[in-house]
Amino acid sequence: MRNFADRLIEAVRKKSSPCVTGLDPRIDLMPDFIQAGRGPLSRGTVCSIISDFHELVLDAVADLIPVVKPQLAFYEQYGLGGMEAFENTVKLARERGILVIADGKRNDIASTAEAYAAAFLGDSGFYSDAMTVTPYLGRDSLEPFAKACALHGKGMFVVLKTSNPGSRDFQDQPLQATGRPLYENIAASIEDLGTGLIGESGYSSIGAVIGATFPADGRRLRALMPHALILVPGYGAQGGNAQSAAACFHDDGMGALVSSSRGITYAHTDAAISRQAFSELVRSKTRQMVDEIRSATSAPTPV
Amino acid sequence: MRNFADRLIEAVRKKSSPCVTGLDPRIDLMPDFIQAGRGPLSRGTVCSIISDFHELVLDAVADLIPVVKPQLAFYEQYGLGGMEAFENTVKLARERGILVIADGKRNDIASTAEAYAAAFLGDSGFYSDAMTVTPYLGRDSLEPFAKACALHGKGMFVVLKTSNPGSRDFQDQPLQATGRPLYENIAASIEDLGTGLIGESGYSSIGAVIGATFPADGRRLRALMPHALILVPGYGAQGGNAQSAAACFHDDGMGALVSSSRGITYAHTDAAISRQAFSELVRSKTRQMVDEIRSATSAPTPV
Repeated sequence: MRNFADRLIEAVRKKSSPCVTGLDPRIDLMPDFIQAGRGPLSRGTVCSIISDFHELVLDAVADLIPVVKPQLAFYEQYGLGGMEAFENTVKLARERGILVIADGKRNDIASTAEAYAAAFLGDSGFYSDAMTVTPYLGRDSLEPFAKACALHGKGMFVVLKTSNPGSRDFQDQPLQATGRPLYENIAASIEDLGTGLIGESGYSSIGAVIGATFPADGRRLRALMPHALILVPGYGAQGGNAQSAAACFHDDGMGALVSSSRGITYAHTDAAISRQAFSELVRSKTRQMVDEIRSATSAPTPV
Repeated sequence: MRNFADRLIEAVRKKSSPCVTGLDPRIDLMPDFIQAGRGPLSRGTVCSIISDFHELVLDAVADLIPVVKPQLAFYEQYGLGGMEAFENTVKLARERGILVIADGKRNDIASTAEAYAAAFLGDSGFYSDAMTVTPYLGRDSLEPFAKACALHGKGMFVVLKTSNPGSRDFQDQPLQATGRPLYENIAASIEDLGTGLIGESGYSSIGAVIGATFPADGRRLRALMPHALILVPGYGAQGGNAQSAAACFHDDGMGALVSSSRGITYAHTDAAISRQAFSELVRSKTRQMVDEIRSATSAPTPV
């Protein structure tokens, strides 16, 4: 199985784009045309609304972005119809050659962690190319995911430093042993756990999630985990901009992925927008994001 | 809406049992009779095997335990068929008057946390009585769940100290500010966040998950969070015994729930066991656990 980091870096280079479209299904925010004539929100209707909406979005951005990040919470809130739509979303993305990061922030211990890895990193279930996991349970809770990554050529992104004000509560706590924030301890585990999964690209299949709102933290973490791919969510909506996201890239403009969800898929201000106009808006917002990230991260021209 | 902690305490008193049956669907560990004549593992077959298995287990233990804890990872590993079985499991438990704690260790920030709360604590989706959540993202990430608990009479258990060796890596790190482990900081947040959700029972609907393998930590955390209900998983299989689980109870024998999964549902040693014998085994293993916990936690007889 080909290394996930290598597959990802190849896709980023091919599309000259380190950008990710976040897919957060929220039927109440979707344009009217997608719901027109569907009737009440039964399980089947929920599934087809979300699936059709994402098919439209994926077709609009397929040549502009290498990766999508469906957010499982927004699928789960619709129950079984939502999870069926998740399965469809994964298929639709893969058919278009787009990599899928299942954003579910899962984790547990021992055989339960193995089950989550099987659910999202195996070859059946909700099989994706990578998933997000939480670190609080300890390094041994991350190992079953790392094993699944090695076995199936998949990837994982460990939640490290989030973009919310509350990320200071526990993530930023200086430790007695080091005088440094807890998240730096976790970063060391991520880098260490990733050494066995470094591909030809020089990147490991074990990455980290770092919010775009604390650029100084991003820069330090980038240096502490030279081999980790960094997933930067919250571009736009959560207050992150291109300059702060750029802190998570290496100087050569590689090593991170920037994700935007609502700023791309719910950018319309009029629910009566037409299908064609919606598709063009999604495409233009994506282009704009790609351009902003590219110009904020491009390596300086050699003199 | 009636307070979750009050509903739970009432159910514990009614059955004289602070025990929880953990439901971890693993088709490979189930007795032969449950799979006989079903054919290949299609989505529908997976769903009916898991649903039928849990119906049998629930019927065997309904009068002995007030709560079940389905583990979402084991459902998710079977894809959509698994999630349909999860929905069935919740229904089957509720029909029998058993409370459901959805063990998914979910969390995220802002509107994504709201979506997870809607998925498991609302009145639709995979609606359960309570769910487990992770704390790493910060106190503000817990608030949307607390709001949903208040609105719908539901509960949440925050992962605090787990039973695995790796729980020492981050959870136990002494903080520079206090010289005390990180988990004590989180415990303070749990107790504080729960003050608005204390019911007539004196317990709050915001509880904590504490593994049964570190009794000294359990005792300290019990004292730091007097109003929190403590969910103690890993009885039996993860090395926890009645004495160490007892550390999480108050002196009056209340305030905690002890959960066993594999030790109850996969206790058979012969896959050829009959339906009747399996049902009796599940019942006797449950009775044994309830007796052990009762005698380890009963308040001392006044002299």
